[in-house]
Amino acid sequence: MADFSPEFSKNSMNMKKSVIRELLKLTQQPEIISFAGGLPAPETFPVEDLRLAADAVFKKHAAMALQYGTTEGDKSLKTALIKYEEGNGVKIGENNLLITSASQQALDMIPKIFLDPGDYVLAGRPTYIGAIQAIQSYQGKVIGIPFSMDNDGFDMVELEKRYRRAVADGAKIKYIYVIPDFQNPSGICWSLEKRKALLEFAYEKKLFIVEDAPYREIRFMGEPVPSIYQLDQQGANAGNVINLKTFSKILAPGTRIGWIMAREDIIQKFVVAKQAMDLCTSPFTQLWLAEYLSSGKLNSVIKHTCDIYRAKRNHMVEMLEKYMPKRFDLRWTKPEGGLFLWISLPHYIDTDKMIFKAVEKKVAYVVGSAFYFDEPEHNAMRINFSYSSLEQIEEGVKRLAEVIKEEIQTHESGPRGQTTAEV
Amino acid sequence: MADFSPEFSKNSMNMKKSVIRELLKLTQQPEIISFAGGLPAPETFPVEDLRLAADAVFKKHAAMALQYGTTEGDKSLKTALIKYEEGNGVKIGENNLLITSASQQALDMIPKIFLDPGDYVLAGRPTYIGAIQAIQSYQGKVIGIPFSMDNDGFDMVELEKRYRRAVADGAKIKYIYVIPDFQNPSGICWSLEKRKALLEFAYEKKLFIVEDAPYREIRFMGEPVPSIYQLDQQGANAGNVINLKTFSKILAPGTRIGWIMAREDIIQKFVVAKQAMDLCTSPFTQLWLAEYLSSGKLNSVIKHTCDIYRAKRNHMVEMLEKYMPKRFDLRWTKPEGGLFLWISLPHYIDTDKMIFKAVEKKVAYVVGSAFYFDEPEHNAMRINFSYSSLEQIEEGVKRLAEVIKEEIQTHESGPRGQTTAEV
Repeated sequence: MADFSPEFSKNSMNMKKSVIRELLKLTQQPEIISFAGGLPAPETFPVEDLRLAADAVFKKHAAMALQYGTTEGDKSLKTALIKYEEGNGVKIGENNLLITSASQQALDMIPKIFLDPGDYVLAGRPTYIGAIQAIQSYQGKVIGIPFSMDNDGFDMVELEKRYRRAVADGAKIKYIYVIPDFQNPSGICWSLEKRKALLEFAYEKKLFIVEDAPYREIRFMGEPVPSIYQLDQQGANAGNVINLKTFSKILAPGTRIGWIMAREDIIQKFVVAKQAMDLCTSPFTQLWLAEYLSSGKLNSVIKHTCDIYRAKRNHMVEMLEKYMPKRFDLRWTKPEGGLFLWISLPHYIDTDKMIFKAVEKKVAYVVGSAFYFDEPEHNAMRINFSYSSLEQIEEGVKRLAEVIKEEIQTHESGPRGQTTAEV
Repeated sequence: MADFSPEFSKNSMNMKKSVIRELLKLTQQPEIISFAGGLPAPETFPVEDLRLAADAVFKKHAAMALQYGTTEGDKSLKTALIKYEEGNGVKIGENNLLITSASQQALDMIPKIFLDPGDYVLAGRPTYIGAIQAIQSYQGKVIGIPFSMDNDGFDMVELEKRYRRAVADGAKIKYIYVIPDFQNPSGICWSLEKRKALLEFAYEKKLFIVEDAPYREIRFMGEPVPSIYQLDQQGANAGNVINLKTFSKILAPGTRIGWIMAREDIIQKFVVAKQAMDLCTSPFTQLWLAEYLSSGKLNSVIKHTCDIYRAKRNHMVEMLEKYMPKRFDLRWTKPEGGLFLWISLPHYIDTDKMIFKAVEKKVAYVVGSAFYFDEPEHNAMRINFSYSSLEQIEEGVKRLAEVIKEEIQTHESGPRGQTTAEV
């Protein structure tokens, strides 16, 4: 009788399980040093202040916190966020703001609102896997745009070329998805020139830009660059930029609270979509964060987090320099913020295969191929530096370097050596 | 320059704003007695115990609670729910369980997994508006099945007839959506016979049943009936029933935590969908509820809630009998549980139009037409009895009865009177 084999939707058949989240399970053995996750450092969580804020909610607003809330989001949290963003140089009104159940919900809403099956999004090669998954879950497609050699944003010539080719092929392109500040997975931060160029490109082609900015405040060196959302505000003010923020990296991901900033009519579209998705984000967690923000301590938590991550990033880069083989085809990004760096390896190394050897040696990374919609690169990996301790970073890089050296040796003294001997 | 008029997706153009949530805004003036919401009574929230449980999470599991969690859900909450459901006579394993960001997320996931544009769902006439909205947001359609005269479930003859007609017309029917326990909006509870008949129907047609059961434990009179999920477990065990539960009505909606019980392969499909929707439900709120459940007090809270709602429901029914005109074409359901009852009015009354007069008289309801996918009935309304106080219930029913009496009078002594005179 248990022969019910349901016919699932095409959306569903298009969904892919996250390689990262599957990898995470593999690497949760305690002896493994994992650079695979995207976890903030728990030592950055202001536990006691968050506890006090939660307690205050029970004492001051229990009936409201435990009840249903509006889809738009709690007024007190919105007021606090408007003030917080003003401190970041972003001016918004209440109607430009929607509270989300963290940024992944925003990433799910956007293709739902914009994409019909077969429609396209322009996005980086590589780009954030969660955005790709959400696009795929509505049968959307991605045109990958490579980054420039300077790691300062898209290769604008390639952007124009691939855009034209796609349009000529009849592709319906609906928006551009970018993470200009310390991209996941590459750590790349866009220059001011490239941000402006992308905005001009979007104006010209009448495209929306989805600016995903979870790491924006996590800058631990270098000079801040205005967000694309700000550049539009300060310039043409076309309102074609949708900016996604979240507490996940600046405070704590367990809160599952994010916010979207956008033009009022776009926010209204999201509100209607969100009603059918989860009615409302938890009023309790919203009031909790509003209460916490009223303490005025968030900025010092962010500063403290940046201090910790700067030290870890510096140590990571130092250890890579110390342990990795010195070769022109083995290099890594040196991010000025965020949680990740990106290692490119000799072209013949396939990190999808190498991961098993790495796990054997008790070190883990995310395979680079996970961050491509199609035609993935296989000789790269994403490395997280926020979660591990300084000691783990040294030990982990050492192990990783050994695995890579063995791969290089196997290849260069192996079949190729023999081939040379035979010639 | 602000001439960016994006082309939205067909999904988006199919989305409808909830009449209820818009109505709620209209009726939030303090003098209005609102029977429109679906809010639990705040006096049922065990504030102090929930506060202590939250505090314990900060003291025992802060790093885990504030971090990312798994998509499947927190293990300790799952263990607590397995025990809780065992107490309800439902036996499930960890792999039959997925924690959701309350039931609306489950209602969003199900059409995402099952429906291609134009596919059909069988559901009650009327049925829960949030389920309709979610189905519409994937361009799904609903075939409405009327309830029997006995208010004990679907009219099974109509179910068979409408099913056959739809299939003959080429409709692809993917699942049946029902709320067998104290349905929203009607308050109807399905009899054992009807539950069995629906299950047999589903076996025969190889259909899944989505059993939405948010009010199941809120039975304040009469004898419990096994859920359809249980009936399948105890019988053929085909695994074609997907059962949706939530803390929203039995504890507090502000927690935004629900759970799905289903066959393991179906749960796996949901997990993949949920990854792209919100990565995970808040680990903090999950650990909070796990901690609260460990106190063993939930069942006494449910009992207390039932006591309060029984009194309110009885008072509501009494006041309806006291104040409403006595007519064969003005009647209401007398639910044995849940939060709502359903009033049917003389056929010429349009509650969509009458709502403005009601709001003028400072009383509100939800228009019955909101609960239909198509061809709505206009002479009915949903009345909530859980939220208002006993005093408000009497005063509100009095006001509502006045509005209805005026409508009847206008119609019966108005144009028709004149017509009669002219004859």
